[in-house]
Amino acid sequence: MNLILLEHQDFIDPQHVRLSDARFKQILQVHGSQIGDQVRVGELNGLMGSGRITDLNEQAVTLAVQLDQQPPAKLPLTVVLALPRPKMIRRIFRSLAELGVEQLIVINSYKVEKSFWQSPALDPVKVRQYLVDGLQQAKDTILPQVQFHKRFKPFVEDELPNIIAGSRALIAHPALGEHCPHQLNERITLAVGPEGGFIPYEVEKLQAIGFEGVDLGERILKVENALTTLIAKLYN
Amino acid sequence: MNLILLEHQDFIDPQHVRLSDARFKQILQVHGSQIGDQVRVGELNGLMGSGRITDLNEQAVTLAVQLDQQPPAKLPLTVVLALPRPKMIRRIFRSLAELGVEQLIVINSYKVEKSFWQSPALDPVKVRQYLVDGLQQAKDTILPQVQFHKRFKPFVEDELPNIIAGSRALIAHPALGEHCPHQLNERITLAVGPEGGFIPYEVEKLQAIGFEGVDLGERILKVENALTTLIAKLYN
Repeated sequence: MNLILLEHQDFIDPQHVRLSDARFKQILQVHGSQIGDQVRVGELNGLMGSGRITDLNEQAVTLAVQLDQQPPAKLPLTVVLALPRPKMIRRIFRSLAELGVEQLIVINSYKVEKSFWQSPALDPVKVRQYLVDGLQQAKDTILPQVQFHKRFKPFVEDELPNIIAGSRALIAHPALGEHCPHQLNERITLAVGPEGGFIPYEVEKLQAIGFEGVDLGERILKVENALTTLIAKLYN
Repeated sequence: MNLILLEHQDFIDPQHVRLSDARFKQILQVHGSQIGDQVRVGELNGLMGSGRITDLNEQAVTLAVQLDQQPPAKLPLTVVLALPRPKMIRRIFRSLAELGVEQLIVINSYKVEKSFWQSPALDPVKVRQYLVDGLQQAKDTILPQVQFHKRFKPFVEDELPNIIAGSRALIAHPALGEHCPHQLNERITLAVGPEGGFIPYEVEKLQAIGFEGVDLGERILKVENALTTLIAKLYN
């Protein structure tokens, strides 16, 4: 991790934190292990800065923190993503946080197996940790907002029109519309299907409320590579 | 997999292949399981087309193949990559094949642990399988060329100048030169360091032979996400 994220309960006073969990071990192994050493820290959903080791024993490290830097700007991007296979959830959620996605809306789709919705990977504590891992990699502090919607049709008909208002709505789907444009750099809602893609009914429902098709050419990419590729093209 | 790749030894005559390995199971599970069903196939380093099931038993499937389509064009891209951590090798090699990279040159770097070079993941049979997996995902048949160079300095001084001749040579490194450009769509040699980056000496050596710096902004991406992001930006 390139940044140690601090939470409210880590603070023992406004200028000091004490850490005894995985972050403590990380500091010992990677960042320095002597009183006076500096590590890069950020407060979850707050500012970033530095932490100086003021006390260190076998159980915990105490840091004097100075938080005075803004985190990097989020991409003005909402990703609407069909629930991935459980073994891909961690990697994809982590990557989306790392890339700076502002909001993630996970939806159902015909090709999502029903059992995926019971995956332990969707435990809210775990989901939050995947996102924190991505932020700590990217040096960011702002958690993406995440929503889950288990029913495709009512979500698309009743809620998605409000979500896409004021954004450019794009659906990534093979052979549908133009090749993915570059550097739009505007507010975008990007819909991406499961492995195997959205079915025609789902594509039509999304097009009916204003989604424009974009595709990535002849190659069929795995969902995680398609997401990273689309985001890289759409923003500077 | 979106394409079943066929090798020379699979052919029982010029129009027929018999498969009994993982591809046989894949055909049964995903693509169809009755005589007459069609599956998408390609010949390794050759043409793509379709295979029609002509015989099927508990041990093997026989396909009548018709190969008449060109695979998608490769990106005119050579990636020069510091050897990744062993647990990332499979995913990164697979992704680079999936994305259409023409050539991959794996090099040493100061921050590459020496033990990584002994990883079983570098077994040539395994490396080839990672690449085949990526091709089967992307619907491509042409194996990327892969080289390994265990000594940084002689490779960069003696061999890399010839490799980059006729290409635009870019090194991705934080705070080094301009933000990564979009849609260059030309022949590129792209150097990417290990987690933690190239050290200044290595950056200077690469700059000395003509590499221009590009960066990806404030966020520090994991190597696999940086690679996908760079490639997505540089090509349509």
